[in-house]
Amino acid sequence: MVEDISTLYTYNFPLIPISRISVDSPELKDYLYKELPVVIEGSNLVGPALEKWDLGYLTENLGDRGLYNVMQTKGHQMFKYFDQNKVTQLKGKMEFVLEASTDEMKFQEFVKRIQLPQRGRDTYSYLQQPLNDTVGPNIFSDFRRFNWELVKRWSGDMKWGSLTNNMLLIGEPGNITPVHYDEQQNLFCQVGGEKRCLLFHPRHFDKLYPYPVYHPCDRQSKVNLRAPDLSLYPLVSQLEGMECVLSPGDVLYIPIYWWHQIESLEPDLTTSITFWFKAGSIDTISFPLSATHKVAMMRNIEKMLTEALKDPKEINELFCNIVEGRYFKEEK
Amino acid sequence: MVEDISTLYTYNFPLIPISRISVDSPELKDYLYKELPVVIEGSNLVGPALEKWDLGYLTENLGDRGLYNVMQTKGHQMFKYFDQNKVTQLKGKMEFVLEASTDEMKFQEFVKRIQLPQRGRDTYSYLQQPLNDTVGPNIFSDFRRFNWELVKRWSGDMKWGSLTNNMLLIGEPGNITPVHYDEQQNLFCQVGGEKRCLLFHPRHFDKLYPYPVYHPCDRQSKVNLRAPDLSLYPLVSQLEGMECVLSPGDVLYIPIYWWHQIESLEPDLTTSITFWFKAGSIDTISFPLSATHKVAMMRNIEKMLTEALKDPKEINELFCNIVEGRYFKEEK
Ligand SMILES: [Zn+2]
Ligand SMILES: [Zn+2]
Repeated sequence: MVEDISTLYTYNFPLIPISRISVDSPELKDYLYKELPVVIEGSNLVGPALEKWDLGYLTENLGDRGLYNVMQTKGHQMFKYFDQNKVTQLKGKMEFVLEASTDEMKFQEFVKRIQLPQRGRDTYSYLQQPLNDTVGPNIFSDFRRFNWELVKRWSGDMKWGSLTNNMLLIGEPGNITPVHYDEQQNLFCQVGGEKRCLLFHPRHFDKLYPYPVYHPCDRQSKVNLRAPDLSLYPLVSQLEGMECVLSPGDVLYIPIYWWHQIESLEPDLTTSITFWFKAGSIDTISFPLSATHKVAMMRNIEKMLTEALKDPKEINELFCNIVEGRYFKEEK
Repeated sequence: MVEDISTLYTYNFPLIPISRISVDSPELKDYLYKELPVVIEGSNLVGPALEKWDLGYLTENLGDRGLYNVMQTKGHQMFKYFDQNKVTQLKGKMEFVLEASTDEMKFQEFVKRIQLPQRGRDTYSYLQQPLNDTVGPNIFSDFRRFNWELVKRWSGDMKWGSLTNNMLLIGEPGNITPVHYDEQQNLFCQVGGEKRCLLFHPRHFDKLYPYPVYHPCDRQSKVNLRAPDLSLYPLVSQLEGMECVLSPGDVLYIPIYWWHQIESLEPDLTTSITFWFKAGSIDTISFPLSATHKVAMMRNIEKMLTEALKDPKEINELFCNIVEGRYFKEEK
């Protein structure tokens, strides 16, 4: 059941509903083709998981096998992703605060943590694990019976690149994956519990102030959407978004470079499975360039300068020198 | 005679004297090699011009030959260079004000204009003409007797690129070529009258706020050094420069990417000849990158984005989007 909309957090910017359509609707391809978000109903994309993957079944089958990536927070539930490679590269060169940490642990250990009552603890956990060959025969057999034909048809028709992985996400109620974008197409399948998803068009890049590309939180917004610092990030007030609430069985298409914030709603644990695809090759470039082209271009420039200068202090200074007092945004 | 230093305009930033050394000094090569400005005395680099090229002789020999480029201003004497190709490219896409215009005219016509008393007119002229094959036999013979051996020795030792051209500059007293940088090495030879030259290290790029690379005034500072708008260009107050006054026979080495402003002093016409050389090839890059490397890199990034986006509005916006709220200069 979708949570009563009136109990959801109220943001200071408009959010219009994301369209919901049936898997059989002829309009579906338009959304995918135009890279517009849509909630697909009735696809049964991850049918066996929907039927069986509750916490008991998962614990039974995963409990003692391999180690799982679990993000953890303390005192808050903002699970801001960070890139461990960039943390290592920047060691000693730059100070930064990471709002979450990542541990590897047995599935059992994760379950033990999330089953402690939330009242009385201030640490929270979020399992984010690629589905790989450590899952054992039962889960693997469920996985093989996902609707791969449908996946192949869509990604083939849309000329997406290869499927890179499937993530298994299990979160506590209240967990938030704060607003960020990915460089991949994403079919986000809700399996258990409910999630609220906020999405923003790639043209809102300037209103969401992502970290520099060299930063471990690259692709994440610096802005806390629930408490934006408008003196640092004034354009947040011009943000306009879309939203949906996903229930088990729903599949949200999150187009590449679209910003998204994903919130696990009360009262249940949330379970989701993602299908990530590389970007397809670009056939034709038309002018003016699209917002996604521009974001890709900005990323390349930032990577190039990071490669050339190496030191974040110098990278910051040089970018500022290019712009300050020289390039001006026109008033809109 | 060097003008009394106390009568020179007083700037709001420190200016230390540029070293003067004899052409025979063994230190000369250090300055050239380290790309540090220096006034070279006694070189006789343009000896025949020094002996003969007064206005009478030039008029006699150039008067009726070919057309000469003459920059003109009205109501002020700031001869800010602009690139006519970029004016054409940007037509209809962007508004900009050019502070000077360029005409082609016979040498005689130029002389007529500058010989009118300055009192009673508000237009000013500055001849800036590459010395080419229209100059006639006498001037050409003088030109051939410049000290080419010395020029070749220096440019060879320093591994500069090829000599691109020699400019003949004839200015009225009070004319100013406002602060800018060139992408070439420059041996600036004073032939008649006196010029005050202000120079700034390439690391002052951020304090001099050059126009965007796509702008017709590319490589020029947006700042009027005599009336800086500190609200738009706050770092001007941190500028530190060097200066010299050139008399006939002096040769100023202006290193590539060094900022320079050149002022024709009272009371005489000023005549100068420049030798411009392409940059040499870079053998080794060492870290941290030098200020000149960084300027070259910034120019390449700006050119790339200009090429990709074409529309100045989009270029401005994208550069601002990369930086604003994302990259921060550290306080010094
Ligand atoms: Zn994501
Ligand atoms: Zn110059």
